[in-house]
Amino acid sequence: MAQACAASSLEPSLVQRLLLCCQEAKKAAYCPYSRFPVGAALLTQDGRIFSGCNVENACYPLGICAERTAIQKAVSEGCKDFRAIAIASDLQDDFIAPCGACRQVMREFGTNWAVYMTKADGTYVARTVQELLPVSFGPDDLQKV
Amino acid sequence: MAQACAASSLEPSLVQRLLLCCQEAKKAAYCPYSRFPVGAALLTQDGRIFSGCNVENACYPLGICAERTAIQKAVSEGCKDFRAIAIASDLQDDFIAPCGACRQVMREFGTNWAVYMTKADGTYVARTVQELLPVSFGPDDLQKV
Amino acid sequence: MAQACAASSLEPSLVQRLLLCCQEAKKAAYCPYSRFPVGAALLTQDGRIFSGCNVENACYPLGICAERTAIQKAVSEGCKDFRAIAIASDLQDDFIAPCGACRQVMREFGTNWAVYMTKADGTYVARTVQELLPVSFGPDDLQKV
Amino acid sequence: MAQACAASSLEPSLVQRLLLCCQEAKKAAYCPYSRFPVGAALLTQDGRIFSGCNVENACYPLGICAERTAIQKAVSEGCKDFRAIAIASDLQDDFIAPCGACRQVMREFGTNWAVYMTKADGTYVARTVQELLPVSFGPDDLQKV
Ligand SMILES: [Zn+2]
Ligand SMILES: [Zn+2]
Ligand SMILES: [Zn+2]
Ligand SMILES: [Zn+2]
Repeated sequence: MAQACAASSLEPSLVQRLLLCCQEAKKAAYCPYSRFPVGAALLTQDGRIFSGCNVENACYPLGICAERTAIQKAVSEGCKDFRAIAIASDLQDDFIAPCGACRQVMREFGTNWAVYMTKADGTYVARTVQELLPVSFGPDDLQKV
Repeated sequence: MAQACAASSLEPSLVQRLLLCCQEAKKAAYCPYSRFPVGAALLTQDGRIFSGCNVENACYPLGICAERTAIQKAVSEGCKDFRAIAIASDLQDDFIAPCGACRQVMREFGTNWAVYMTKADGTYVARTVQELLPVSFGPDDLQKV
Repeated sequence: MAQACAASSLEPSLVQRLLLCCQEAKKAAYCPYSRFPVGAALLTQDGRIFSGCNVENACYPLGICAERTAIQKAVSEGCKDFRAIAIASDLQDDFIAPCGACRQVMREFGTNWAVYMTKADGTYVARTVQELLPVSFGPDDLQKV
Repeated sequence: MAQACAASSLEPSLVQRLLLCCQEAKKAAYCPYSRFPVGAALLTQDGRIFSGCNVENACYPLGICAERTAIQKAVSEGCKDFRAIAIASDLQDDFIAPCGACRQVMREFGTNWAVYMTKADGTYVARTVQELLPVSFGPDDLQKV
């Protein structure tokens, strides 16, 4: 099954590296309002890793999530082909899941790549972008009208 | 199955009314940039219907979707309990699906309510918010850290 | 001076009505995260008033401000010509000012209309959209490339 | 005058470097929808430069501006003290101005730093964040309620 493949095709050592990166990225979080730091690490097809954190704003709607920060960084450096993203938070008992907005931004760059959602202890579950945003609206739809 | 119930519990006449409302709402769309008008009609638990359309901006990220316009209208009028939302666009051959950001805003107010995605001819498919945004981050998660 | 006119041309009784409306609108605020309720009341050229409040989200960036809620409501009801907007918060000693995102959304619909920023006691200062967002990017700029 | 100082205190060679960087950053813009590429270059107090570009989305509201991309990159790398940001677009006859949302995100990290707005030929005007977002809402206001 293609989707399972996307999520399972990463070598374990690479997964571990990505998990460490998103934990590390979390340290830069600017979250004085939520006090809910999040980190993300994005692996591109050519093997680069871009990290991101949440960057909040006194006007809450103007903040941005860790996942989108990482994706925007990658795009601004010329990378638009992604293999996987890992996300870390301080949640002890729950796997941190990306918000819907981040799923939509992930989906802009493909549906069949992997999202690793972790707990604070480093355990994780993986899903594809497709699984996290089923029946999605995307770039093709704009061409159809 | 609870989720199927949410999507199937609306009386057919109410569904038809909601479908007409979202088609009508589409006419107010302010979309000079995408030229992709979208309308939404939101049914509250107490039987009121709030309509919305997309409202774009020359700075594209500052636009808003039809679904969120409808939800914000309802909340600003004191309604936060929703039964269903219907969405209309000019897509002939595809059911218009809500973006991830709108799914997250829907999810803020519950996961077990229905989303009717229509084609221009008025045919539709229905899903619950839960089905459209599985494994979601929500209000409870913020309490856990 | 045209800008001063925009801010001063409202009859006092209409200003008072607008101030009451934004105070009233504040009561519907959904702000469990910031606990910072804001209300807005938008006066259209044809004399209608649309109210709005902030509608927050567990994923903070997906919240929306009171001012934008009011504007989106008006547009979705077919009104795009605005005379004035009034904003209320619980700030005792400061006039509540719109965020930059709201200023940009106001500016989409014209630069020469009035923004009334109030304190909790109902006193206010007024500025034009132009004064609050000088040297602005707007719809015309997109045509020029 | 402090504000003028902020905008004029950069050595000419540093300004030139920043201008080149934002032009270069523009090349990475992902803007299939607006076809309006924008680049930004952000200078930190410790002399680092972070570049950004706009990253659009099929769901327009989920795109992000060049200026915010640059700021989020810097924060995610541990830099929150900024001296100046330069912005480039393809506009021939107008200086590209930041949108209100970007001004608010700039303002989160201080009001007295410089924004260089350029034309395609590299000429520019400079303003402080304070001048671009007067009477602003900011981090302090949240403490007051
Ligand atoms: Zn997110
Ligand atoms: Zn949407
Ligand atoms: Zn605002
Ligand atoms: Zn911007």
